Amino acid sequence: MNVAILGLGTVGTGVRTIIEERVPGITVSRILRLPADVCEPCMTSNYDDILGDPSIDAVVEVMGGLEPARTFILQALAAGKHVVTANKAVVAANLGEMCRVAAENGVGLFVEATSGGGIPWIASIAKVRRIDEIGSFSGILNGTSNYLIDRMRKDGSTFDAALARAQELGYAEHDPSADIDGIDVANKTIISAAAAFGCDCTHDLPVSGIRNLTKDDMDAFAAEGLIVKLIGRGVCEGARYAVAVEPQLLPADSVEACVPDNFNIATLVGTTVGPLKFYGQGAGSLPTGNAIVQDLIDCEQGVRPSFDLDSSITYDPSLLVGDYVMRADAAAMPAGGSARPDGTSLFTGLTALAAREMLRTTIEADPAAFMARMPDPQ
Amino acid sequence: MNVAILGLGTVGTGVRTIIEERVPGITVSRILRLPADVCEPCMTSNYDDILGDPSIDAVVEVMGGLEPARTFILQALAAGKHVVTANKAVVAANLGEMCRVAAENGVGLFVEATSGGGIPWIASIAKVRRIDEIGSFSGILNGTSNYLIDRMRKDGSTFDAALARAQELGYAEHDPSADIDGIDVANKTIISAAAAFGCDCTHDLPVSGIRNLTKDDMDAFAAEGLIVKLIGRGVCEGARYAVAVEPQLLPADSVEACVPDNFNIATLVGTTVGPLKFYGQGAGSLPTGNAIVQDLIDCEQGVRPSFDLDSSITYDPSLLVGDYVMRADAAAMPAGGSARPDGTSLFTGLTALAAREMLRTTIEADPAAFMARMPDPQ
Repeated sequence: MNVAILGLGTVGTGVRTIIEERVPGITVSRILRLPADVCEPCMTSNYDDILGDPSIDAVVEVMGGLEPARTFILQALAAGKHVVTANKAVVAANLGEMCRVAAENGVGLFVEATSGGGIPWIASIAKVRRIDEIGSFSGILNGTSNYLIDRMRKDGSTFDAALARAQELGYAEHDPSADIDGIDVANKTIISAAAAFGCDCTHDLPVSGIRNLTKDDMDAFAAEGLIVKLIGRGVCEGARYAVAVEPQLLPADSVEACVPDNFNIATLVGTTVGPLKFYGQGAGSLPTGNAIVQDLIDCEQGVRPSFDLDSSITYDPSLLVGDYVMRADAAAMPAGGSARPDGTSLFTGLTALAAREMLRTTIEADPAAFMARMPDPQ
Repeated sequence: MNVAILGLGTVGTGVRTIIEERVPGITVSRILRLPADVCEPCMTSNYDDILGDPSIDAVVEVMGGLEPARTFILQALAAGKHVVTANKAVVAANLGEMCRVAAENGVGLFVEATSGGGIPWIASIAKVRRIDEIGSFSGILNGTSNYLIDRMRKDGSTFDAALARAQELGYAEHDPSADIDGIDVANKTIISAAAAFGCDCTHDLPVSGIRNLTKDDMDAFAAEGLIVKLIGRGVCEGARYAVAVEPQLLPADSVEACVPDNFNIATLVGTTVGPLKFYGQGAGSLPTGNAIVQDLIDCEQGVRPSFDLDSSITYDPSLLVGDYVMRADAAAMPAGGSARPDGTSLFTGLTALAAREMLRTTIEADPAAFMARMPDPQ
């Protein structure tokens, strides 16, 4: 099988290395780069050289960003080429359209590497659904925010110190917003929901992040035996589903609470198999490259992922209800909660959507306010 | 696809339920039972009715035990029928022979359900090996022993009280030896090593269990921030491998330490993907039935597992070296250790094989002695 790689950054380099060193049946025949970076015969800066080359069976899109990635993916599918991508933003924003174009052209759209890096998460969802319905999923799907929380917990770092260290190590971008504000997790949650529930998942889900999490917050939670993690989740009941991204408090002796460094973990609950958890490196050149090459091998073996997006499965935020703890200035604290000894307030029986709206208005008065979902009753 | 189920106990019932309720493409056409239990037209007590029926494509062996399971599996393979089995004892004892007969007859031997119940462990190993070498694996592969440890930890139960409760719940057999002495984990370790390393794994590996674990031991470990788990593991370097089953001490905030109840977790480390962990129900009618039905669906889709057992990969116990803590009467304590404040002794730099031999001789003098491997340095 001949493949073209669009972009030769961290992940693209991993894909090329793995294929060339480990997978004799696949050939990297073209690489799309910026004109200034074209330095080998296989490289081009003209995408038409790839689109118009009938010997290229699959395109690996690892450029990132929304455009031109969206156009390039749709053009490749329309040209009858399979597409394997690690680009969660473009897939989350355009999954329905991409699936339609892939189906119309009899090719596969492979997105394992968008969610959970090297973890076989999307393929495992698809495998479970051969037998079971998936009633819910949840996970630590962003390694950067998990790294920040783990450093704050284990080293006593402040948020800013942990973030600076993550940026030094290349775990966090110069602008860390997508990671710490939950945007990256939201994209992965949208893709996971599509895979798990077959829904064309809403883009308008409640999303809150950990930007305002402080060491004092973590110490107060720890005194209650709790650890906070940034969790993306979805539930499905019949033809209704809900999704959310929010900081979640977990018992310190739970599996998720112990996920270290920048690792990811994702859980699904199937009808007969019960809960399954999948843990691994959520990012990085070789782990994410590995997920892409696994998709390519699947593609070569004739696998064609099917998301079966069913528009009759509707978004119902009332399916996700929980209790929330809010830390805010007294003047900014919303009414209706019960005061806790540490000055925070507890709000019970809120949907994730209502909780997010409450946080939004609270932050208008106290820009440093922080809110987390309490553990679900065991 | 038409299948016959051999045995209709807990797992066989789960397989039948899942197929009949969820998998229209597969039909349970015959069920082998004891003569007294034959009560439906599809049931027979004569295995020749199944072997000689050319319409039966695959045989699901869920009888357990070594015989007649071994003979029935080999006969089915020789008759050109695929075999799917949950029987870890018979597979661990006969994997080489079964693989040969399967290959000679162009059929598949599917063993997902032998190791880790509903966890997609064996299939995940095979998938990882499409790209990577697996350098090591380890796991909590026995739900009964994990349940006992978890009850002792969380409820303060004695070993005997926890065992009695596990027997009440059906988690433990009347004779719990296979679970608490590590024999069940050894079988799963042998199968996992064959899948992960391609070795025809030795049956003569060091195995120790948790029969002698006391609440006092656990309290002393907890004072050091450690939790004990019964771990099966393997390592492979080049053409050499080693395997062992033993109680292992782990930091209380590690993922494995937090695996609750009767759940299982298994970890592999691949060259490019890094560490992957898989968690789920290691036993039970529906989870284990699910694993068998996943194998049947794979079989229907043309998957043929290949273990590629390579006899040139040799067993080298020197690859597994660690430090061990021994609790024994003063008169029974082996020489050469360093005394610890709690009366136990630490022995450093032992192979798992040497440690097992040391435990064996210690138990001759103190039948209640207990030994565990210390955490590996981070």
